[in-house]
Amino acid sequence: MSNAAPEFIRPAIRAMQGYQPGEQPQGQSSVIKLNTNESPYPPSPNVFEAINYVLTGDRLRKYPDPVGWEFRRAASKVLNVPAECIVIGNGSDEILSMAVRTLVPEGGVIVAPTPSYILYQSLAQIQGARFHELPFEKEWSLDARKLQGIGHLTFIPNPNSPTGTFIDPENLANWPTPLVLDEAYVEFGEKNGLSLVQDHPHIIVSRTFSKAYALAGIRFGFAVAHPSVAEQFYKVKDSYNCDVLSLAAATAAITDQAYLQEMKNKILATRAVLSSALVELGFNVTPSHTNFVWCQHPDQFEKKIYEELKARNILVRYFHYANWGNGLRISVGTEAQIAQLLYQLRMILKR
Amino acid sequence: MSNAAPEFIRPAIRAMQGYQPGEQPQGQSSVIKLNTNESPYPPSPNVFEAINYVLTGDRLRKYPDPVGWEFRRAASKVLNVPAECIVIGNGSDEILSMAVRTLVPEGGVIVAPTPSYILYQSLAQIQGARFHELPFEKEWSLDARKLQGIGHLTFIPNPNSPTGTFIDPENLANWPTPLVLDEAYVEFGEKNGLSLVQDHPHIIVSRTFSKAYALAGIRFGFAVAHPSVAEQFYKVKDSYNCDVLSLAAATAAITDQAYLQEMKNKILATRAVLSSALVELGFNVTPSHTNFVWCQHPDQFEKKIYEELKARNILVRYFHYANWGNGLRISVGTEAQIAQLLYQLRMILKR
Repeated sequence: MSNAAPEFIRPAIRAMQGYQPGEQPQGQSSVIKLNTNESPYPPSPNVFEAINYVLTGDRLRKYPDPVGWEFRRAASKVLNVPAECIVIGNGSDEILSMAVRTLVPEGGVIVAPTPSYILYQSLAQIQGARFHELPFEKEWSLDARKLQGIGHLTFIPNPNSPTGTFIDPENLANWPTPLVLDEAYVEFGEKNGLSLVQDHPHIIVSRTFSKAYALAGIRFGFAVAHPSVAEQFYKVKDSYNCDVLSLAAATAAITDQAYLQEMKNKILATRAVLSSALVELGFNVTPSHTNFVWCQHPDQFEKKIYEELKARNILVRYFHYANWGNGLRISVGTEAQIAQLLYQLRMILKR
Repeated sequence: MSNAAPEFIRPAIRAMQGYQPGEQPQGQSSVIKLNTNESPYPPSPNVFEAINYVLTGDRLRKYPDPVGWEFRRAASKVLNVPAECIVIGNGSDEILSMAVRTLVPEGGVIVAPTPSYILYQSLAQIQGARFHELPFEKEWSLDARKLQGIGHLTFIPNPNSPTGTFIDPENLANWPTPLVLDEAYVEFGEKNGLSLVQDHPHIIVSRTFSKAYALAGIRFGFAVAHPSVAEQFYKVKDSYNCDVLSLAAATAAITDQAYLQEMKNKILATRAVLSSALVELGFNVTPSHTNFVWCQHPDQFEKKIYEELKARNILVRYFHYANWGNGLRISVGTEAQIAQLLYQLRMILKR
């Protein structure tokens, strides 16, 4: 499509490019997909049971619970946070956009580290806000003093994407702006920011079911926020933003923590294999707290490697950050997928 | 919840009340639910088949198609509009909010008729825009000259809720602002605005699967817009706003037009019974082009009737519009549900 945008479209929208998500080949295919950090394993069997239970009832024709109490009660128990702090979302992407709409006026400023999740910049553009990049310091820390009071909202993915690095949430407790801790990958690490929320109304934690819970297809995420903030999010979100099937699936998934742990252990074991093999192949590998690995090669164009892998039906993600650098982000697949990736990488790098 | 909103929340959000959707009692219950215009009949059997097909594949863990081509191709065929004109949404509520974010700046003006769908005002508040009411003329027409050039976006539900009235879309073709024709109930009428879109980039048609298609639980809607506008909507929407199950369900539902027609016929037959019985009971009944009936009683407080019905486990919707009036909006249920409603109404009004 390449039609000129009509004059009545907001200038900020006309001017923007639009976020480009990772490739999602549809239909059956032989592609090994290591580009958007999905789990290589299916969701908990309880998820299928829960969906089937909904399907046998008379529930598709009726509106869902607009505020998702059943899920919130289940999540409250597992995470040990009050249910009133939990805001349900149509994927954590919707939580991020809810945060922008609740906190950032047109002409406001959104802050995020460089390099991090590229969507934050698009969210700023959609709201007509400015985007301010805060580069990581050495050892992947962030220096809030460099903001000099700028910012209506900061997004910090923690662990970060694409680097897989992690900042102790305690060190972010006094962040000078409202702060969304985007914990999309937190289940693969050891610590999280949930305990900060109760005493710090300016800190909002965002979670997703698309990664560790293996439910990217059903779109579910949630925020944990101080009740005084959660209440405002509920005004901004669409009334019926989560459907009966995703609510049931998410409730079943979060309740099955044993399965989550089992899948996590498998993924971390494969990540260790992948990381050390990449080092052997000459990559600089950033130690990962997630289900992906960020790597850079001192002698090779990463983009070329990405393209060669794609020609061999293996999708990884190539990122280029202006004034910062390039790299490959490789999702941890199954053992067999990673063995195949490493075989092909050896072939590519040998030549 | 009644916590004071922190200072860092946008003033427009702090000040607003938040949209109150109709009551949605959860769990099994003996309530006769005639308050939010769901279909009283299940969705097409093909919907269940399509969902089950997705569940047998390895698809819950993977991201869905961000732009929903399979649905768009199916809808394109049925509706005879190009697939590139179709924008998928997480319910038509999301389409409405996408329209606001694409077209209306902070401080802009959103127009909607009075009385109509109350959500439009909430959407204006969330964007920090002003809301301008345009009262219906006699015979339920609208006089655009009264806007005197005001407005970044007009919402016209057509057929309208809560009145069930309809304006010939030809009469809206030259509307002076960008216009969302909210056709949530259009399947129950005879005409629609789709043919206007190709030649009028400022007209956007919104559709839902929550009413005639009996899929309120899965959250799916779509816009039909000129390609130059659809392209801008795709920049604003969340990348993965529709999940694999709702995409499959909606594709199956729109493809089964025979089932849709069959359910429509049943609902229209019951509507005729309901309307004439209400007239006999002394109500003023506005002729309906939808799956609900708007009625007012000259001698009774409608609110009292609503409350008495609720005490008898029958939910209908009571609306009060300041400077306009009150009434009851009653969804057309099954024959048995409507018989029960009428029985109880007779008991209530006799006293």
